[in-house]
Amino acid sequence: MIRLQPMLFAAAMAAGLCAAASPGRALADEGMWTFDHFPSAKVKAAYGVDIDQAWLDRVQGAAVRLTGGCSASLVSKDGLVLTNNHCVAECAQSLSSPGHDLFKDGYSVKGRDDERKCPGQQAEILKTITDVTARVVAAGAGTTGADLVKARTAVSATIEKEGCPDTATTHCQVVRLYQGGQYKLYTYRKYADVRLVFSPGFTAAFFGGDPDNFNFPRYDLDCAFVRLYENDRPVSTPGHLVWSAAAPRDGEPVFVAGNPGGTDRQLTISQLETQRDLSLPIALMLSAELRGRLIRFSEESPEHKRMAGDEIFGLENGYKVRFGRLFALNDKAFMDGLKAREAELKAKAGTTAPWDAIARAQVAARELYLQRTMVDGGPIGSQLFTYAKGLVRAAAERAKPSADRLPGYGDAQLPLLQHQLLDPQPVEKPMEQLEIEFWLTKVRELLTVDDPSTQLILGKDSPEGLSARLVAGSTLADPAVRKALWEGGEAAIQASKDPMIQFMLRMDPAARALRKENDERVTGPSVMATEAIARARFAAYGDSLYPDATFTLRLSYGKIAGWIERGRPVPSFTRFAGLYERATGQEPFALDPRWVAAKGRLNPDTVFDIATTNDIIGGNSGSPLIDARGRVIGAVFDGNIHSLGGDYGYDPALNRGVAVSTVAIGEALDKVYGQKTLLAELAAP
Amino acid sequence: MIRLQPMLFAAAMAAGLCAAASPGRALADEGMWTFDHFPSAKVKAAYGVDIDQAWLDRVQGAAVRLTGGCSASLVSKDGLVLTNNHCVAECAQSLSSPGHDLFKDGYSVKGRDDERKCPGQQAEILKTITDVTARVVAAGAGTTGADLVKARTAVSATIEKEGCPDTATTHCQVVRLYQGGQYKLYTYRKYADVRLVFSPGFTAAFFGGDPDNFNFPRYDLDCAFVRLYENDRPVSTPGHLVWSAAAPRDGEPVFVAGNPGGTDRQLTISQLETQRDLSLPIALMLSAELRGRLIRFSEESPEHKRMAGDEIFGLENGYKVRFGRLFALNDKAFMDGLKAREAELKAKAGTTAPWDAIARAQVAARELYLQRTMVDGGPIGSQLFTYAKGLVRAAAERAKPSADRLPGYGDAQLPLLQHQLLDPQPVEKPMEQLEIEFWLTKVRELLTVDDPSTQLILGKDSPEGLSARLVAGSTLADPAVRKALWEGGEAAIQASKDPMIQFMLRMDPAARALRKENDERVTGPSVMATEAIARARFAAYGDSLYPDATFTLRLSYGKIAGWIERGRPVPSFTRFAGLYERATGQEPFALDPRWVAAKGRLNPDTVFDIATTNDIIGGNSGSPLIDARGRVIGAVFDGNIHSLGGDYGYDPALNRGVAVSTVAIGEALDKVYGQKTLLAELAAP
Repeated sequence: MIRLQPMLFAAAMAAGLCAAASPGRALADEGMWTFDHFPSAKVKAAYGVDIDQAWLDRVQGAAVRLTGGCSASLVSKDGLVLTNNHCVAECAQSLSSPGHDLFKDGYSVKGRDDERKCPGQQAEILKTITDVTARVVAAGAGTTGADLVKARTAVSATIEKEGCPDTATTHCQVVRLYQGGQYKLYTYRKYADVRLVFSPGFTAAFFGGDPDNFNFPRYDLDCAFVRLYENDRPVSTPGHLVWSAAAPRDGEPVFVAGNPGGTDRQLTISQLETQRDLSLPIALMLSAELRGRLIRFSEESPEHKRMAGDEIFGLENGYKVRFGRLFALNDKAFMDGLKAREAELKAKAGTTAPWDAIARAQVAARELYLQRTMVDGGPIGSQLFTYAKGLVRAAAERAKPSADRLPGYGDAQLPLLQHQLLDPQPVEKPMEQLEIEFWLTKVRELLTVDDPSTQLILGKDSPEGLSARLVAGSTLADPAVRKALWEGGEAAIQASKDPMIQFMLRMDPAARALRKENDERVTGPSVMATEAIARARFAAYGDSLYPDATFTLRLSYGKIAGWIERGRPVPSFTRFAGLYERATGQEPFALDPRWVAAKGRLNPDTVFDIATTNDIIGGNSGSPLIDARGRVIGAVFDGNIHSLGGDYGYDPALNRGVAVSTVAIGEALDKVYGQKTLLAELAAP
Repeated sequence: MIRLQPMLFAAAMAAGLCAAASPGRALADEGMWTFDHFPSAKVKAAYGVDIDQAWLDRVQGAAVRLTGGCSASLVSKDGLVLTNNHCVAECAQSLSSPGHDLFKDGYSVKGRDDERKCPGQQAEILKTITDVTARVVAAGAGTTGADLVKARTAVSATIEKEGCPDTATTHCQVVRLYQGGQYKLYTYRKYADVRLVFSPGFTAAFFGGDPDNFNFPRYDLDCAFVRLYENDRPVSTPGHLVWSAAAPRDGEPVFVAGNPGGTDRQLTISQLETQRDLSLPIALMLSAELRGRLIRFSEESPEHKRMAGDEIFGLENGYKVRFGRLFALNDKAFMDGLKAREAELKAKAGTTAPWDAIARAQVAARELYLQRTMVDGGPIGSQLFTYAKGLVRAAAERAKPSADRLPGYGDAQLPLLQHQLLDPQPVEKPMEQLEIEFWLTKVRELLTVDDPSTQLILGKDSPEGLSARLVAGSTLADPAVRKALWEGGEAAIQASKDPMIQFMLRMDPAARALRKENDERVTGPSVMATEAIARARFAAYGDSLYPDATFTLRLSYGKIAGWIERGRPVPSFTRFAGLYERATGQEPFALDPRWVAAKGRLNPDTVFDIATTNDIIGGNSGSPLIDARGRVIGAVFDGNIHSLGGDYGYDPALNRGVAVSTVAIGEALDKVYGQKTLLAELAAP
């Protein structure tokens, strides 16, 4: 599933300053193009399709970014939004309770009154793109290290604040494109009230589970519908996409409009080596062990299974993504290709100086990596930790002028943060204890017992004992407590007796110091070098380039097509009949009872899932798959296994995106779920 | 802890034919030398100590190999053997029962009648070494691939059978040294009845637990005593080592006689790249996830905690070993050093042909790796699977002439296998279910659902369902059932209704086919190349070489010394006082209650653990640390973190072995455990 990973998401949402660049001309169907720089001529030549400004404007106006790390599209005039089931999984998990497992069984409404708000969720539609490169790169001139990083953060915060005086309905973000080659202000119309309308549940949406994830053929109804609300009423959205009820055709040209979360195609080899030799293996080992703990936890009781559902899904999905990336980088031939690309650009640039500067900064990056991951990162999955950290930092940062704050705490960013911290959500204490305990054991193991950070965080305590006390004693699960701490600011935080808040007050100075050291030794020294490489790339390759993904709106083109897997052709479609053939009766290959019952009513030849050549990646989940006429014919929910190496490069022969067809969604809504009202809304003009 | 890993052990015990070579002259204190090729002149020059033949003979005669993957030494005239506590951990685990956690609390006897047999354990003392190189390399001349491997296996089995007609008291093994440069027949006096005399238990022996493992300073009483029996009476061992009750001196020359399990210092770069890019990351991710499941399992109840004790220890220990090895190979400077070493040897050899042949075979090795690991490897930790596989294979193999059998099933090897398969041992079914379920999920994940091996092993079943049925239905936990199947041979196996036996009969043909394919495509094509490299190495470096470790007897030399860790000196000793300073009251830094009680009686200045420059590795656990006069002054139980990279190369500035001193053992036996009888036996001549 190509939902954006939480860590990537945080990085992409802030105007990141890490990373650098190395290009190569885009291959056939390659590219995650910005809407202000789409290669219409290339598409016309390849597919004979005219993508004019009207087409682009219509699609842009209907393309939705979900702040949980997904994409979506407007599909009715009343704010109805199509996305993936796995994009509403966290929402469904939050709305579940003992005996009501919405994550597993799904959700549907009888009428609009049943539509339920998703905690912390926000939807955004891109309105304008403005070039602010000159203003950003002028900031901090003459400074270096952490000062330069601070100046750049400050100018971004200022531009965002100026761009969106109305933070209730707009959201501004300075986006770093081409690894520093351009900075642009993206202005969004935002909707902070997103409600769940329909989810088929994981049994049908994620048939095949983790074993089939990132594989194809697939048989998943990975779709869901949410609705945008404002002032407790559905938003009017006349510019929605037209829903196509027709079956897609093999080979037809298709387009994906969505928010790919992040790619690393323009990083330098030294940066990729840090991933290959350090950060990917460490992340994989951490998630593997946590996965083991959570799976055992989920087997202990039906209640534990319900609690852990979305967390295990997210963890396994992220694990598989990193697994694919590590083994792509461990492939010598693949890495040699990337090295050749970098060598070509260096030769054209006539210097290696910026690459050398980045390689030097990477030495420091590796040195700081474990400390940063463990201390500034914190426990994977813990909501209590996220609440405590957000509240403690927000209180300290809000006391400063907007431009002086940490990334993520500027005035333009505070409303979403507040939304995420204060919305009511269930906190599962047994899960919290497991996650915090696990993190504490890893702090001690990876940093070692005598390390000052370990001593600060754990002291003479044990991971088991400390986590139990923090979780049992904390009252942050109560939204009213969080609201009081948010509104009370620094004084309330300092006075709080909550053990999670006190714990955070004790450790946060160390986390901040590590962040600053990283700015000083890694990010700062790389800023000028990455921008120099970006300029060299433009000089060498002109405007044939697209920027690395940044969880901002992009358009990719391609066609419906399978591929050849080790000599064997993989077809571009699956059909309903295949689902019933693959079912074993055992999880995750067990059929949803509603699908068992509906078997005789369904047309077995219905096109179910679709492989396409579009260049997509995590964050594209839920993106509309659009035909040449601009109608939505599916929702992208995955890539094939080769698409995981797509983080570093696109291979037109092998990389494939995977979508669920609108024809399958329509047939299932009708025959499996009896959703006549929803079908009628989709069919309306 | 440097106990040999089970997988390595199996490989080392068979006359392995994989792998190749590339040397470099031994640095100061480097080397795991065979007793028939010890560099006495070098030691004399460096330390002024005379190691003559009488010294070597005495030490060889008292050095013990424990087939569980450890080393040990005779320390009394009545068959008393010193080893590590963690070397008897599996035994203590086997002798535990609900409410009696010998693994955690240890074991001591009132008299010899209390000494309890360790299941499957065998002790061996090396008697003779005979060169059989010419006979081995002549075998299979003119053949290639799997035929060549078969011929080599056959000649080894024949030599072993001829060398040890009396399999009741002797054990023969053809050892492949210098990665094929020499083949030697090692003849052992064996003792199949090994009984537990004293274990301090894990709380005192493994104080600091996994967080402190492979770290120093350490405060561990990682010692234990077992006794060799024959005909139900202690074995008479007049040639034992003298126990030294004197404190060791900083800088004094010391020797380690033991069985380092395996090193990869003479492998080619292409073989190391397979480890770095594939086998180490996969093994780490598998053990990380299983670790997570087992830790959560152990937290579910005191009974689960007791059951999982030794398994978690072994898994975490192996995880840390591989972690150290992966990050050694991921260190570019370290790898560049290894590459330079190989380049030097290639230049001296005047050809790259054998290295190229091995690199080609490694392409096939990588292609086969996941299938071999998952299908021929089987679940980590499961006894039921091990029993079923051993019984099914032994029945089939024993029907053939000894020379035609799989490695490990020749007549010389059957007695130990029988011992291991038939000795009574508790089988913990909840652990079995967890381990087999985990393995089945990974077969499906790593090989994918539609792979023929997955279909064969799992079919339309689920890992949860199949593992539950296999474990619930199997009667192999009953030693009488295993005995009947062993004695009944192929007919009994084919007639068995035991689900584990039937499962194994279904999958073993696939496992055997993979083994054969590996012989044909990887091992076979590498045989001649590895031997050619070994010859080139001898030609270039003469007899300045020591062979890679093979879990056979070696002698290393060095001195008691700390090291400089990032500018900070680490002292060579710890003392009892330090234990009490480091204790927090929380596991794994909680003191054993007996140590709390004894605090006032103990001399706080007693030398506890010792760092030395000796070149050691997994399998050396329990080795005697010997002074220049041949007296035992400690038991090696660990290395520092740098010693993990020692698998690939020894760094005299940083690599350190770690031992517990005999003076600490004596003081603790006296003041903490009240073991006057044992002390008297150690003090007797």
